[in-house]
Amino acid sequence: MNIEEIKNRLARFAEERDWEQFHSPKNLSMALAAEVAELLEIFQWLTEEQSNRIVDDKKEMGLIRQEMADVLIYLIRLADKLGVDLEQAVMEKIELNEVKYPKNSVKGSAVKYNRL
Amino acid sequence: MNIEEIKNRLARFAEERDWEQFHSPKNLSMALAAEVAELLEIFQWLTEEQSNRIVDDKKEMGLIRQEMADVLIYLIRLADKLGVDLEQAVMEKIELNEVKYPKNSVKGSAVKYNRL
Amino acid sequence: MNIEEIKNRLARFAEERDWEQFHSPKNLSMALAAEVAELLEIFQWLTEEQSNRIVDDKKEMGLIRQEMADVLIYLIRLADKLGVDLEQAVMEKIELNEVKYPKNSVKGSAVKYNRL
Amino acid sequence: MNIEEIKNRLARFAEERDWEQFHSPKNLSMALAAEVAELLEIFQWLTEEQSNRIVDDKKEMGLIRQEMADVLIYLIRLADKLGVDLEQAVMEKIELNEVKYPKNSVKGSAVKYNRL
Repeated sequence: MNIEEIKNRLARFAEERDWEQFHSPKNLSMALAAEVAELLEIFQWLTEEQSNRIVDDKKEMGLIRQEMADVLIYLIRLADKLGVDLEQAVMEKIELNEVKYPKNSVKGSAVKYNRL
Repeated sequence: MNIEEIKNRLARFAEERDWEQFHSPKNLSMALAAEVAELLEIFQWLTEEQSNRIVDDKKEMGLIRQEMADVLIYLIRLADKLGVDLEQAVMEKIELNEVKYPKNSVKGSAVKYNRL
Repeated sequence: MNIEEIKNRLARFAEERDWEQFHSPKNLSMALAAEVAELLEIFQWLTEEQSNRIVDDKKEMGLIRQEMADVLIYLIRLADKLGVDLEQAVMEKIELNEVKYPKNSVKGSAVKYNRL
Repeated sequence: MNIEEIKNRLARFAEERDWEQFHSPKNLSMALAAEVAELLEIFQWLTEEQSNRIVDDKKEMGLIRQEMADVLIYLIRLADKLGVDLEQAVMEKIELNEVKYPKNSVKGSAVKYNRL
């Protein structure tokens, strides 16, 4: 399933349960934040090194997969409600970032970019 | 660009800037949460109704598109680091949800599902 | 108990359990965010009006009290680690806000303040 | 100023600006989350060790102080709206935690507590 197909399936899912009424952009942004926090909770007491090695922990990875799916689900629902083409938006953002952070001038510096 | 292509482009982007060192799963979960909060900030003082009508505000929508792109960018980076197939994970989660929230028994009730 | 007393009691609590090692400012900021998200989750599908009326729901209020306590606990731990006097910091921030948002010019406008 | 005094000052501040209308518990939970995310953003690319040493960086600490103040401001506003006595709630939560995590059985283990 690609993003377009997921979008349609989630819309049908919400409609069949009469849940569209809850899915205002405001509410979806909250649900999105709550799901992302489930990921934070998994990583909060791990060192960075331990977080790298979590891929070897099958049980934790099963949980992480589900939380990441929930994040994408709410993000796609929000995009649907707002008429945003996510892949197109990402492509444009990457192009902006390539201009903003030229390869050579920011090499290895977290300070200079601050965020991706 | 589909998710797979975005994943590869983001990996190259980070590598060319020597930023892979910052992209531990722990750090990426924090960046993801920080980006989602930018969306919260846009909606926090709006009524739900105002949040529905934000689609007509071109300037705000430009900002929202960028924030949503940032969320997807960090989610895909995290998926790459952890070897998670996002589309597959979403498909499985939707199937779980269809069993957990059967159409007829939860109709219109936010209490019963609590989350999607 | 005032904030100073809570601070000391939490420090002793962590020390007795050998948990100081987990309480780097980075980790505490994540725990703080995860706890705040528990509040988001409680309110995400409620209308604003329903969120106002939640004070009458004894069971929900018991939960909310606990989540709010967790938020303050981690905030005070973080303040302790960073040597921040929270009450002093709040007083200074309020004074800044009083200059930034003069009573008469921003009356009733969420746009003008955007945040408190 | 103690929490009670801050509470009253913030209530007057909001009232004088006709901002009470925006301060539903739902909205305040969002504002709280958005402010906490500002802290996440400061720490996201730092190692834990770097986050420990941030106390020596006067400029960063000025920013952190302000963000922490904002978190406490919204938390106290929310407590006021919901009639929660924060200090009392924290005291009760600490007592619960002392039963839940006895000193000797959890020593040095993040796994066993998972959260404070």
